[in-house]
Amino acid sequence: MKALRASSGKAAVENIPIPNIPGETLVRVISSGICNTDLEIIKGYAAFSGTLGHEFVGVVEDSSDDPALVGLRVVGEINAGCGSCPLCLAGDPRHCPTRTVLGIKGRDGSHAEYLSLPSRNLIPVPDNVTNDQAVFAEPLAAAIGITEQVEITPDTRVVVIGDGKLGQLCARALVSLTNHASLVGKHSSKLKLAEDHGIETFTAEKAGQLSGRFDVVVEASGSESGFASALDLVRPRGKIVLKSTFHGRPSWEAWRVVVDEITVVGSRCGRIGPALEYLAEGKIKVDDLIEDKFSLANALTAIDRAASRGTMKVLLGIDS
Amino acid sequence: MKALRASSGKAAVENIPIPNIPGETLVRVISSGICNTDLEIIKGYAAFSGTLGHEFVGVVEDSSDDPALVGLRVVGEINAGCGSCPLCLAGDPRHCPTRTVLGIKGRDGSHAEYLSLPSRNLIPVPDNVTNDQAVFAEPLAAAIGITEQVEITPDTRVVVIGDGKLGQLCARALVSLTNHASLVGKHSSKLKLAEDHGIETFTAEKAGQLSGRFDVVVEASGSESGFASALDLVRPRGKIVLKSTFHGRPSWEAWRVVVDEITVVGSRCGRIGPALEYLAEGKIKVDDLIEDKFSLANALTAIDRAASRGTMKVLLGIDS
Repeated sequence: MKALRASSGKAAVENIPIPNIPGETLVRVISSGICNTDLEIIKGYAAFSGTLGHEFVGVVEDSSDDPALVGLRVVGEINAGCGSCPLCLAGDPRHCPTRTVLGIKGRDGSHAEYLSLPSRNLIPVPDNVTNDQAVFAEPLAAAIGITEQVEITPDTRVVVIGDGKLGQLCARALVSLTNHASLVGKHSSKLKLAEDHGIETFTAEKAGQLSGRFDVVVEASGSESGFASALDLVRPRGKIVLKSTFHGRPSWEAWRVVVDEITVVGSRCGRIGPALEYLAEGKIKVDDLIEDKFSLANALTAIDRAASRGTMKVLLGIDS
Repeated sequence: MKALRASSGKAAVENIPIPNIPGETLVRVISSGICNTDLEIIKGYAAFSGTLGHEFVGVVEDSSDDPALVGLRVVGEINAGCGSCPLCLAGDPRHCPTRTVLGIKGRDGSHAEYLSLPSRNLIPVPDNVTNDQAVFAEPLAAAIGITEQVEITPDTRVVVIGDGKLGQLCARALVSLTNHASLVGKHSSKLKLAEDHGIETFTAEKAGQLSGRFDVVVEASGSESGFASALDLVRPRGKIVLKSTFHGRPSWEAWRVVVDEITVVGSRCGRIGPALEYLAEGKIKVDDLIEDKFSLANALTAIDRAASRGTMKVLLGIDS
């Protein structure tokens, strides 16, 4: 089968065998979304070699661990835990110390014709959720994951930094919980996109006048300057949620975190189930975030497109 | 009166008028502790010019706002709020946006024969607390302040990084709350000091084998490497409490905070009342932390002593 593989700082479409992992479930991939993490991995992040991709929708082709799944359309939790450590036994393999992560750590990903995951990672997709929507289940879960870690009430003043796809999803996940959800960004067309979903927006210049105004600041810009902006916007004793993973060692004014007694919360994954419910109920809409689609054969062109500044979600339509 | 003043990156003992602030209370200082923040201010931190010092015990000499205090021995909350903003009205002036802070921001400090504070900032000292103990009320409050921000139960695995005076106080504040309080440091004599108070200790070399073991890590080393050590020691979804304020912009591996979903909590001030109770009840002992005492006339020598590596608390005995 064809697969988009990363190795030693390069990416290439290669022909490799269909995965065959005993005790797991084989999924024929319908569509796979390109995430900024894929781009970071190609640049060397996480020292991962293998098939990229962790945002997908597919159909179960074969299953040795749960044959009832065969034929169902599914999305998947990307962390596969050992199943026996305290974290896995408590139902949360996302921090299992020996976990593999689809397309990120020790496990081939979804930018391929087929992928393999344990059946317990797979969740059937309701009929009224389209393939294009279902592929957003994973990044939307990551956005909704913020609410597992930080309490958001109708009075919480929230601002998301970054008008890219991650920022848009975070703001859409939060706007239903608070009457004060806003987003700061640089591109008027993207600010418009957020406004269409009931989110207040402002530009970086305007942000300079809103210093110390926000209870919760979500850093989703993926840029080094994002954290400095977050420190400016958050109130004393407020919270900064870090969503972007970017390689490197940025510098930070740690003393400001101490003096203003700010809490910085790292936030990575959420749970797929609630994200799928939001999509099925139409509470969060994502179709307007799709920028372009490519076939798997043209995956390198798709990667270039995804990496160009300001691009929203690029999908690989595997069987299109 | 004599006062140790900082200005433009230099410190000097100067003769200045006794403070006379209408509506406030005049305190004759008995003893004043040198804090690392004083040393940072002399190097330029907080851009403060004026009399240094914020850890003190004294006797009320005169009071226009509460004459009943005259003659009482007192310690003081160092943040003086405006009294009318929402934070001050809620009883917490520590983050009042227009606050002054004794010896740190907009208000002359305690390394002087006299200081001035609003009467509401002053708390009488119980008779069984000695002057040497009472001068620790402020730094001990800062240590106990951790428990206002992070829940510590008997099962919480806590480690404090740093065997200096701040680390020692933090560990002593936490050891009564958890059965698993430990401290990592470099100096065997200081590790011994912590052990005398029931705190488990280990060296930095040993810390390398304890990666990911701790629910809460308190960074109190004041060194740039402290945060990297904290990231190594904390478990996924654990908490790092930042206690040290040091000038500059250290670099940090922000991606680790995201991937392991760590929470970083900035922690500055506590409340003097509970600290004074701990001292009065003998629950926390501090006498062994005093390294040396100097007269105010010899304050520059005292500063040099406090700044030399590995020195514990240096006191200025103002009327001695």
